[in-house]
Amino acid sequence: MAKSGAGHRPIAPGATLGILGGGQLGRMMAVAAAALGLKTHIFCPDADCPAFDVAAARTVAAYEDEDALSAFAAAVDVCTYEFENVPGRTAEILADRVTLRPNAQALATAQDRLIEKQFVTGLGIATAPFRAVDSEHDLAAALEELGAPAILKTRRFGYDGKGQVRIQPGDRPGEAYAHLGGAPAILEGLVRYSQEISVLAARGPDGAFAAYEPCHNEHRDGILAVTRVPADVPAALEQQAVEAARAIADALDYVGVIAVEMFVVEGGVAVNEIAPRVHNSGHWTIEGAETSQFEQHVRAVCGWPLGATGRRGRVEMRNLIGSEIDTWPAVLAEPGAHLHHYGKLRARPGRKMGHVTRVWT
Amino acid sequence: MAKSGAGHRPIAPGATLGILGGGQLGRMMAVAAAALGLKTHIFCPDADCPAFDVAAARTVAAYEDEDALSAFAAAVDVCTYEFENVPGRTAEILADRVTLRPNAQALATAQDRLIEKQFVTGLGIATAPFRAVDSEHDLAAALEELGAPAILKTRRFGYDGKGQVRIQPGDRPGEAYAHLGGAPAILEGLVRYSQEISVLAARGPDGAFAAYEPCHNEHRDGILAVTRVPADVPAALEQQAVEAARAIADALDYVGVIAVEMFVVEGGVAVNEIAPRVHNSGHWTIEGAETSQFEQHVRAVCGWPLGATGRRGRVEMRNLIGSEIDTWPAVLAEPGAHLHHYGKLRARPGRKMGHVTRVWT
Repeated sequence: MAKSGAGHRPIAPGATLGILGGGQLGRMMAVAAAALGLKTHIFCPDADCPAFDVAAARTVAAYEDEDALSAFAAAVDVCTYEFENVPGRTAEILADRVTLRPNAQALATAQDRLIEKQFVTGLGIATAPFRAVDSEHDLAAALEELGAPAILKTRRFGYDGKGQVRIQPGDRPGEAYAHLGGAPAILEGLVRYSQEISVLAARGPDGAFAAYEPCHNEHRDGILAVTRVPADVPAALEQQAVEAARAIADALDYVGVIAVEMFVVEGGVAVNEIAPRVHNSGHWTIEGAETSQFEQHVRAVCGWPLGATGRRGRVEMRNLIGSEIDTWPAVLAEPGAHLHHYGKLRARPGRKMGHVTRVWT
Repeated sequence: MAKSGAGHRPIAPGATLGILGGGQLGRMMAVAAAALGLKTHIFCPDADCPAFDVAAARTVAAYEDEDALSAFAAAVDVCTYEFENVPGRTAEILADRVTLRPNAQALATAQDRLIEKQFVTGLGIATAPFRAVDSEHDLAAALEELGAPAILKTRRFGYDGKGQVRIQPGDRPGEAYAHLGGAPAILEGLVRYSQEISVLAARGPDGAFAAYEPCHNEHRDGILAVTRVPADVPAALEQQAVEAARAIADALDYVGVIAVEMFVVEGGVAVNEIAPRVHNSGHWTIEGAETSQFEQHVRAVCGWPLGATGRRGRVEMRNLIGSEIDTWPAVLAEPGAHLHHYGKLRARPGRKMGHVTRVWT
């Protein structure tokens, strides 16, 4: 019996929050939970993961290890996750034993680009045009309909620009299809957009909803580079963006922080992607908002009142990617710059190593 | 050979900060260190201490356990502490093996009210009038000189109003002396003061110095209840208070955050007490200042640039003592109130269980 609905015991400080995943998101979530008097128990296959440094308890095991998952579920009072690629069977095992928030439906929806886009358009919210692609033949037909350029993406397990290939006019569909190794895919038509924004919002088990102001995102090589708040968008568009996030959260009976990436297009927004978790484009909230996205997520997951989402000034968050982390001494020496170093051992190219936030009041 | 001076290796993220003591100060320090990419190793005799919940490594051992101290020193890159009653021998063992900041002299000075007051007055800074008391005869003579009311305090191991007794006119010195069990003591004459303030400041190994604005403190039953910033003091007095803290830090060749409690008296300030560590009256800096006292302490101890100490607004920090912690749901429901729950298991009367900070911009 899934416990993600009503009927669970109230969570109080002293309880243990279980977190699947031990990256920087889990690390910052654990720190936020500690400020509220919670213990955290991190489950991660990687013994060197960043979040273990700040966790009260650790499980090093594969996400498929059913015994380890059962023991973990028994040791925690409520459970959440820091990444959307939690295997469905893993979510099922946990949800049978402990309150899992956000719920398994949110995971299933966000894990699959096709299901996600069908879900969003089903709510009457725009996305890029898309077609399911399960064969070279599908791809050719989809290209016929949507035209090139277009982007072929795997339905599952893509992040930071991985698992996708751009198709230009004249490219041979067969090569692009082969590039993804025959995985179930989706072809997305290009949308003309003026900027990329995201809405970070939280929803509680009672349906309470609180959004941060939409933020403007800039990517480099498919990876988020800079987030700026406020995004320079009209009030009506901001409202439309927040209402889209609310509709998505309500439809999923969502509990926790959700991030909805959107394109600003002619006449409104088109949803690009849903992340059922705290999100890189919300890191600015640590210093830039009344309540950080991490505290907000913990509040929601525990069934506590959501915090105030007001902004403290004009905010800029820059990721420190790969060797950019070597600039940490300069960041520390800059008055008002807030360094976040994730404590990762190796600075591989493209790896998110830290970030720096600046707030102008 | 003590390593607290120059010549040590630079500390970088990824290094391990050792912290003696596992209370809420160690907990908040560990969280600040994690944001800067450091691991923390907490040494505490109490296996249930709050700081263990957020530490990468833990040692449960007595402060007198030389083998455990040696192993701890070998496992960390730099060492600090969250309480001033670190035994002298403990500090010596550590300082022989690893950089200990603040240094042993700061500890020795702050641990003993007589040495502390002699040190402060030696710098030309005012304190309450005081006399050493090692016998009932000393006490009678001291009372003759300073008059009653006066306060008899043990020289060592006093905190939160413990280890002290107030002597009223007509009280018999023998009873007061017996109350302290014959421990070496100090008689302090009363000072007329308009308010209690404290200066939180930091000093780096290179002599860099940065102070927060003085804050106003209110005590109840000898325990800090409320801190407000700014303290309502003239600019000249604020400068005098900060300069006193700087003179004290310089004279101790201090490295880290120091808290200097002072009385505002006719014509200036009189120093009441030095805490060679982060301090309860500095908790407001977490949300109320550009850099929290915990991050500032970590920066100083690591030999990194000190952070900006600017204030974000008018700030009030209230301790949640004993059963006051039961108000946590109301605090969470109050927009803009920042709850800090220390995760302690038992809410004994007089025990600091958490605090709440409010900032008005």
